[in-house]
Amino acid sequence: MPLSPYTHVFAGNPLDRAGDRRADAAWLAGLKADPAARALAFWNGKPLLADGRIAWLPVGFAEGLASPDRTLFLGLDGESGVFAVDIEGEADPGEGVLEGRGAFADLRAVISTLTMEDAAILAAARSLFEWRRRHRYCSVCGQPSDLAEGGWKRVCPSCRAEHFPRTDPVAIMLPWHGDRCLLGRQASWVDGMFSALAGFIEPGESVEEACARELSEEAGLRTRNVVYHSSQPWPFPSSLMIGLTAEVEDDEGQPDQTELSEVRWFTRPEARALLAGEIPGLKCPGPHAIAHHLLRTWAET
Amino acid sequence: MPLSPYTHVFAGNPLDRAGDRRADAAWLAGLKADPAARALAFWNGKPLLADGRIAWLPVGFAEGLASPDRTLFLGLDGESGVFAVDIEGEADPGEGVLEGRGAFADLRAVISTLTMEDAAILAAARSLFEWRRRHRYCSVCGQPSDLAEGGWKRVCPSCRAEHFPRTDPVAIMLPWHGDRCLLGRQASWVDGMFSALAGFIEPGESVEEACARELSEEAGLRTRNVVYHSSQPWPFPSSLMIGLTAEVEDDEGQPDQTELSEVRWFTRPEARALLAGEIPGLKCPGPHAIAHHLLRTWAET
Repeated sequence: MPLSPYTHVFAGNPLDRAGDRRADAAWLAGLKADPAARALAFWNGKPLLADGRIAWLPVGFAEGLASPDRTLFLGLDGESGVFAVDIEGEADPGEGVLEGRGAFADLRAVISTLTMEDAAILAAARSLFEWRRRHRYCSVCGQPSDLAEGGWKRVCPSCRAEHFPRTDPVAIMLPWHGDRCLLGRQASWVDGMFSALAGFIEPGESVEEACARELSEEAGLRTRNVVYHSSQPWPFPSSLMIGLTAEVEDDEGQPDQTELSEVRWFTRPEARALLAGEIPGLKCPGPHAIAHHLLRTWAET
Repeated sequence: MPLSPYTHVFAGNPLDRAGDRRADAAWLAGLKADPAARALAFWNGKPLLADGRIAWLPVGFAEGLASPDRTLFLGLDGESGVFAVDIEGEADPGEGVLEGRGAFADLRAVISTLTMEDAAILAAARSLFEWRRRHRYCSVCGQPSDLAEGGWKRVCPSCRAEHFPRTDPVAIMLPWHGDRCLLGRQASWVDGMFSALAGFIEPGESVEEACARELSEEAGLRTRNVVYHSSQPWPFPSSLMIGLTAEVEDDEGQPDQTELSEVRWFTRPEARALLAGEIPGLKCPGPHAIAHHLLRTWAET
């Protein structure tokens, strides 16, 4: 049963994260030793897939492919432990020891082909591995820190500081005025791509203030009213997209030429045509992205 | 003009953060040299206040009280720069060089006496200083890192990694079933205090999933539907409170005895009496906290 009208790709993780038990190392070791336990593998940020699904491996076999201390506890599937291992190195193990088991794929490139469950499990694993990759040292004192709680925490053996995974909240919004909404494009995107505007929420800001600030900075728009739509975890590397619609004071707006190279207003019929891929030379994100649903909800209202 | 029906304490910062200009060190230096510039001061996490307002200091004077590299650019007030300095050390400068200028106060203790504008400016400064205090070293390689962009970024001179302030999203929710809502209490709170439930949103979770997980973990509740209410920056040290109401499947619920020591159901008349302070022996948070407004909105519906 959905928790809200919108469950986006990368949400809907079917595993029980067992946050209250993963600090118990003996319990985790027991789970790992159970033959029913399984592990997925990442190699340099890419998950191992077979036939478009996660290629599950026996935990011990998977751990043998990675350096020590590269195993993450993802949660429980019923009573069975589900793990992930992070393989580094130049040689693709998909062409070596893992041949026949699957191939490592770029997660962004396969988003729309994954099941919801696999996408959500891979999102959690990828975000945690990226956090680990960038947080091997204690930011308080500079010493190497140790993993704890199945990979969900680091503890500094020198100054005792505790460090938890980052989740970076992002406001992503569709501004509208009267019967038109505004989309923007970044110069680096594929030709003709337009999408919602977005930016990181800073310390000391509400979601609504961050939305108004970003619309002002990126497009020179003054925000009148902000309404929450839905949220999406986004594992590149570890954002929480908070989707909003924002009524703005006029239908002007100029791209700042730093973040955005172009902005463009769309009527509801134009937005529906854009979503249907019926405007020659223009594109918008597909249904895997919250931006698609912000636009669709507005266009179909 | 408010951006949404709820603007909470710590939101509503009147300054222009000038995020697109603060990377320009020459521009910042010019602002600082302008006699119209002003600075607030923190000492060990406490702001300098006078008569319940921020005690503004000349920037050069304030910088002279702190170690080098302890100045933060907070934003523009019109054309004037607004800064903050972070003073450390055991001796209270409020009883020394700053005598007569004000006194350093515990921010939590004075929340309800501050103006909205002052509270919001102090929230941004406090969160940034706490982030700086815990991120002097590069978490990628362990070397000391340098401040940049007026204090809003760190750059590692060794591995070139860039680090940005953390904002930790938290789901804070009022569960309800039929005509009753549930509040919980932590054993460490003042006697009789009950509040909304809350927990950090983890990587790979939507806001709605985090809400359901926390209600399950802390109170054994199964969530049916989650609705967004409002958001509040919370500078202890740098959370973004995302307020929600959550319909749950029954009116059972047990405290986990780890986070929560007790849970209790309230009808709407009981909730209104609790908000009015009319239930002997029971309390709930005041209007400075988003939990108060979650409860009030539900109780008055």
